[in-house]
This record gives sequence, structure tokens and C-alpha cells, in this order.
Amino acid sequence: MRIGPVRQERPAMLDGAGKLRDLSGYVEDIAGNVLGPAGLAKLAVLDPVQLPEITGTHRIGPCVGSVGKFICIGLNYADHARETGKEPPDEPVIFAKAVSAICGPNDDVEIPRGSEKTDWEVEMGVVIGSRAKYVSEAEALDHVAGYCVINDLSERAFQSERGGQWTKGKSHDTFGPIGPWLVTKDEIDDIQALDMWLNVDGERRQTGNTRTMIFGVASLVSYLSQFMTLLPGDIISSGTPPGVGLGMKPPVYLRAGQVVTLGIEGLGTQRQKMVQA
Amino acid sequence: MRIGPVRQERPAMLDGAGKLRDLSGYVEDIAGNVLGPAGLAKLAVLDPVQLPEITGTHRIGPCVGSVGKFICIGLNYADHARETGKEPPDEPVIFAKAVSAICGPNDDVEIPRGSEKTDWEVEMGVVIGSRAKYVSEAEALDHVAGYCVINDLSERAFQSERGGQWTKGKSHDTFGPIGPWLVTKDEIDDIQALDMWLNVDGERRQTGNTRTMIFGVASLVSYLSQFMTLLPGDIISSGTPPGVGLGMKPPVYLRAGQVVTLGIEGLGTQRQKMVQA
Repeated sequence: MRIGPVRQERPAMLDGAGKLRDLSGYVEDIAGNVLGPAGLAKLAVLDPVQLPEITGTHRIGPCVGSVGKFICIGLNYADHARETGKEPPDEPVIFAKAVSAICGPNDDVEIPRGSEKTDWEVEMGVVIGSRAKYVSEAEALDHVAGYCVINDLSERAFQSERGGQWTKGKSHDTFGPIGPWLVTKDEIDDIQALDMWLNVDGERRQTGNTRTMIFGVASLVSYLSQFMTLLPGDIISSGTPPGVGLGMKPPVYLRAGQVVTLGIEGLGTQRQKMVQA
Repeated sequence: MRIGPVRQERPAMLDGAGKLRDLSGYVEDIAGNVLGPAGLAKLAVLDPVQLPEITGTHRIGPCVGSVGKFICIGLNYADHARETGKEPPDEPVIFAKAVSAICGPNDDVEIPRGSEKTDWEVEMGVVIGSRAKYVSEAEALDHVAGYCVINDLSERAFQSERGGQWTKGKSHDTFGPIGPWLVTKDEIDDIQALDMWLNVDGERRQTGNTRTMIFGVASLVSYLSQFMTLLPGDIISSGTPPGVGLGMKPPVYLRAGQVVTLGIEGLGTQRQKMVQA
């Protein structure tokens, strides 16, 4: 994980007792080649309780630094595709979020000026550990460092009523909380069997499980690598289960002052207060 | 400009006689805060002929390093919109290219595996110099460092026949040659009056002028800053004039072995040989 003020985060690790441990003596950041097999192997041999403890309260930053690409998969849960009125896609729908939208898991989220349709989406994030170009599904997971929680916030009017390309509604500052932790893949028994949920002001909106993804992690990494080269620190947000505001009848969107909480089994939780930009 | 092997480029400047001059004693890279008003002012006072000359032949790299966002504007020339069979848009169409697609202006360009519709697009690139969020058109150019030539290569089938979001067809490695130079804005009298052209194997395909852009540079920067925060080193590719392969009757696309040359008045030229990925 990464803790500290915005853009001054330092690397840290959570020990078995939930205490923060300082990693800055070992790596400069949780980014780039630190995420590759050799980099993660060096961290894996550390005994967390031997690392300096970090006491006090600290902001948690995005769990990965220097993200090059923030790639999202649209309509990747059959039930969610249906609630938006669309057929499940034959192949993954790919779009990009601006990397400047990335923020910490508990940072305030801005509702853009003029927005009336800011919406939530709990998603499982896949963090790339090593370069992947034209890789097969069988090789794909070798290029994955680990996983994290993402709230893929959207402004639905900007996304769909302003020209048709989704990037416009997905890229506002703070529309990409990632973390709290990067959970390395060895920590997860079955990435396609994790419960996920999202509440707005304590009321349950999304309930799902990664087993209902149309295209699983290995399939997504292999597929994406046919169209672009994935590099260490790239993040793939793998789609959202049913229960987004756009799918409610009538649709319901976020307002300043509301609080969104979300989480995925084994990957931690997030909490964001909505504020007006 | 930036010269040297891939990912090992060093900063350089072209003097009045066209000789390469070494800037590495003054800045680490042409990137980030070097592109802001204070950074550029420090470079502006240097006398190029007093800088060490770089002799010999060198690869020219992308003219900007550490690009955070590579944002493109679709259908931004009325004639080009028509040739693709679409109405000119009421507001800018925005999509993103993967930053891993960026390459030098004269590097080989890869035709993706399975591609039958790789297409060219000469575009004027706008390089952001300082943070821009919710800026007006009147303020917009204060946030621009300068301009460059871009070939916004596309795979049309991947772009339009594989789910509808364009990123998939715009992001292959080498689909974003940028440079040869970043031309600072003080060097250009009128950015909305530059001739532009593109040839394939010496045959003219695109002929245009930035004056026929539907949304000009100030308008684009201001507009984009309503949807995402622009940061130093971000690049906006501002759209292409008529004459793309998709618009020919019948359509004509690039094949391995062909050579594309392109240029914009005052911003230099590019030359790419097509190779099979």
C-alpha cells in the first residue's frame, strides 16, 4: 500500500496484525518494476514484523503509483449489461479513464460542475506486473501482480449524451479511487469467486461476485494484449455487477454530502464522501 | 526535442543552423514542469550556439517524455467528418490513445496482427505546459507549452467494428509518432493557419490547414478542462483533415513496406516505414 499526503505517498505494508510497516527502506514506490515477479519476490521474503512500524493516522493513497494506463471493461457482468438495456457483448468493451482521475480509496470524490448523473461502480482492479503483448490466456496471469478495489465513478450524461465516447464521463478528478491495498495474486485462492458490494449512505446498492464476470481476468489480459502492450503498473478495471444508479427505476444519482462505501472479499474496503467540484 | 535510443532519450535543442545542441546540462528531460512557463523561460534565455553540439546521426525520440494522457479529438475538421459519413459534431468528440503507443517521429510503425485496416491521420498536437482545470477559452492558451506533429494511426476495424469504443483501434504500439520537435507557442504566429499534409509512398493523401478545424486550440483546451484536469506533458491530438484511407472510395489501407511521410508548416516532418507486428 501507499500512505501519506497526495503525491507524496511512501510505500508501506500491512502486517498480520493489521499494523502499518514502512517499506521505504526497500523500495522507492509501489510502482513499475517493483510489481514484476522479481520485485514482488524481494518483498515476499521480508518479515513484516521486522520492518519499522508506522504509528499514528495516515491518509491511504492509491495502492499503485505511476500508473501508465487505466483501462476499463464495459458491461462485463451479464446482469449489469441487462440493467443498462444492452445485450451482453460478444467480446470485451474497452475504454480508458484519465490517469489523473486516480485517488486514494477514502479521499473525497468530486461531483463535477453541472453534473446531475454521477454514478458509482464497484469493480475489481487487475494490476499488471510485467510487459504483456500478444500473450495467450494460459500465459496471461504470469503478467498480473495482483488485485485491488476500484470505484469506477461515471458521469452518465457526459459519458453517453455528449458524443458517444465514454472517456468524457469517466475521467473527472477523483473518479478513480484505487486501493486500499494491492493484494498480490498469491494471496487470493480464486479471483473468480469474490463477493463484492457497494452501499450509498449505508443502503445496499450493488451485490455481486466476480464469478459472474462474462470475461474473466486471464481472458481480459490476453484480449487487451492483442490491442495494446500492457506494462507494469497499468490497471484494468474489470467491470461492475448490477445495481448502478443508472439501472434503478427511476435512475438515482449521487449528491454532495452522500457517503459511498464499497468492498471486495479479501481486497479491503473504500469509503468516499461526495463533495461539489 | 529528445534524441537517443528508445526510453534512453536525452534532451536537445535545434539551433538556428539546424545543428543539434545538448540540453542535458540544463534539464533532465523535456517533460513535466520543464514545460511550464517558468521551465520554458529558463530554456528561452539559453543561446543555442553556446550549448555543446551533438554530432553524428541519432534517432529522434518522441518530443515529450512521461506523457500522462494522450487525448484525441474525433471528427474535428468538417471535411473529414463528411468523408467518414458523419455530421460535424456539436461539441468535441474525445477519446484516448494508450500512452504506450507513443514513439519517435521516424520510427517504424507496426501493423497489428490480423489488421486489414491500418490508417493514417496527420494531426497537430497540443502539449500542455501547466495544470488546467475548469479554465475559460481566454485563459486556455496560458496552459499550452507548444505544438508538434502527430500521426494518429488507427486500425479501423478494431476501432469501429469491435464494440464501438475507439480506444481499442487507436492504441497499438507505435500508433502515436510525436515530434520531431516540440515547437514552443512563441515560435508560431497563428496556430490556426498552418498547412498540413500526408503522403503514402510519395503520393499525396491528405492536404489541409489548421484553419478548418471546427474547434480551435483554445476551445479544445477549455472544453477538455471541464471533464478532466490537464497536466504538464499531456498531449491533445487535435483531429485530422480530409484524406484518410477510410474515406477513399474504395477505402485504402496501409501495408507492410509502405512509407508514410507527413508534416505541418513550422512543426517539422515525420517519416515512418510500415512493418508487420
